[in-house]
Amino acid sequence: MRKEIKVFAPASVTNVSCGFDIMGFALDWPGDELVLRIKKQPGVVISKITNDEGKLPLDPYQNTAGFSLISMMNELELDHGIELEINKKMPLGSGLGSSAASAVASVFALNEILGRPLSKEGLLPFALEGEKITSGGKIHADNVAACLYGGFIIVRSLNPLEIFNIDYPQNLHCTIIHPHIELRTAEMRRIIRDNVSLSDAVQQWGNIACLVAGLIKSDFSLIERSLQDVIIEPIRSKVIPGFEEVKRAAIGAGALGSSISGSGPSIFALSTAQGIAQTTADAMSQIFNEMEVKHDIYISKINRNGPKIIE
Amino acid sequence: MRKEIKVFAPASVTNVSCGFDIMGFALDWPGDELVLRIKKQPGVVISKITNDEGKLPLDPYQNTAGFSLISMMNELELDHGIELEINKKMPLGSGLGSSAASAVASVFALNEILGRPLSKEGLLPFALEGEKITSGGKIHADNVAACLYGGFIIVRSLNPLEIFNIDYPQNLHCTIIHPHIELRTAEMRRIIRDNVSLSDAVQQWGNIACLVAGLIKSDFSLIERSLQDVIIEPIRSKVIPGFEEVKRAAIGAGALGSSISGSGPSIFALSTAQGIAQTTADAMSQIFNEMEVKHDIYISKINRNGPKIIE
Repeated sequence: MRKEIKVFAPASVTNVSCGFDIMGFALDWPGDELVLRIKKQPGVVISKITNDEGKLPLDPYQNTAGFSLISMMNELELDHGIELEINKKMPLGSGLGSSAASAVASVFALNEILGRPLSKEGLLPFALEGEKITSGGKIHADNVAACLYGGFIIVRSLNPLEIFNIDYPQNLHCTIIHPHIELRTAEMRRIIRDNVSLSDAVQQWGNIACLVAGLIKSDFSLIERSLQDVIIEPIRSKVIPGFEEVKRAAIGAGALGSSISGSGPSIFALSTAQGIAQTTADAMSQIFNEMEVKHDIYISKINRNGPKIIE
Repeated sequence: MRKEIKVFAPASVTNVSCGFDIMGFALDWPGDELVLRIKKQPGVVISKITNDEGKLPLDPYQNTAGFSLISMMNELELDHGIELEINKKMPLGSGLGSSAASAVASVFALNEILGRPLSKEGLLPFALEGEKITSGGKIHADNVAACLYGGFIIVRSLNPLEIFNIDYPQNLHCTIIHPHIELRTAEMRRIIRDNVSLSDAVQQWGNIACLVAGLIKSDFSLIERSLQDVIIEPIRSKVIPGFEEVKRAAIGAGALGSSISGSGPSIFALSTAQGIAQTTADAMSQIFNEMEVKHDIYISKINRNGPKIIE
């Protein structure tokens, strides 16, 4: 058995417009890098976390990567120990599934170093255990599933947990803009109403039905018309300064559609080609430049395979 | 130009479980037969309606077939007149889109006799005009679109009106049981709540997303798990005596799933083969027999093409 492995786990976009809480997709970048080392001494030690501005706990029971790993080790009854180094090559609290990437990276790394005793389906519950730490005990499977499986995923049901990958057009590109403003995930959850009007719900499931059909059939025109969220975006977008302008700029630049990534503040746009994704990025960036809001930009294809071994 | 044409327009199932107000499909039978004759004298005359138990108005302005035709004739500025004979070869008020079938039959017949000046998209608004008469002026496009286009349809949006056909497995069969009890469509609408919980809505759009994916990919297992309605069926099923037992019998007999057709009282079940659809029919029928509820049974493949010329 090798003693050390280095892996990458991707960022992910969830709540894809009309797909609140049920749809997500993975990105080629940014993401987390994680080194996992087998040690003789039992237990999990997180020896180093880079690029987290000191925000993430080294205590493995408080850390998504650490806790995912502990859950998995308990289940597999491993008697050796593990040392982790986490390099956050993606922003925290940005709506891009940072904690999901850490959770997936750790269980994927352990599974690979052990010679793959578990399938991805088998890894999912452990990554979700870790992810729970950051979501106050509630399970949101969309980021973890998108990160672990790659591609576009749909969460059909949380109990029992059922995740499906759906086909999507190969030339689909994603532009992400991450404004440097801080939103609290709990707060972003709180402002959503517990009830929605039936007529809005009907509109939403008409759109999600057609978005799925559009993705599977590579019908860009249908994808474009279906990327509409009448329920969550109108509420959450109010706390992201410049959202409407950025979205308008993205669509004006040729993107198929644009909405909030996860619970924000990142904003994603989908395009049919690399060039349009770049033009879209420029247009979105210009708005935040005018508003003097610092931001990062990422352009990425949809990640097909989820996490991967780097070394 | 020929002077007379006889057409058939199919019954349709809408509100397909989790697809409330947005999904529908057409059946090979039952349906409406309609004879349309060109007359010199201007105006529309409905000379005969058969099998309607005297319930349908002969006044063309009050009749869905008549009013659809009048809307279309006004638009096309036709100066000759038309005589209609309608043979209701399907039950009225059964949740199988009876008025939609009449509306579609009339505009389809006129379009065919005129040498097809309009596409199906072009016919849709006129059929909807007629359908409005029975729905109190509110547009529900699902039955009309399923009947006119055939196959499985999704209503992405009512305003602007956007309908899409989606692929589905060729061997899909439908069993319909129509208990002879009377429900008022308006009443069936009224008992539905104006608001739904967000968590129920999320479950519903997880299911509709996966139902669409399952249909397009012919994934029967996914179709089976996705045919779940947590919003409308729990309310409406209470006014259909025996619903739960009939549904359970259908699934016990091997059907993929079962729910209310339209706003009821008909109950549909989907199966993967003719034989299973027959076994399902027997099982559903037995429940209503035990309850001494008179009923009709129909077994049909999904109708691929919508209305057709008979003579």
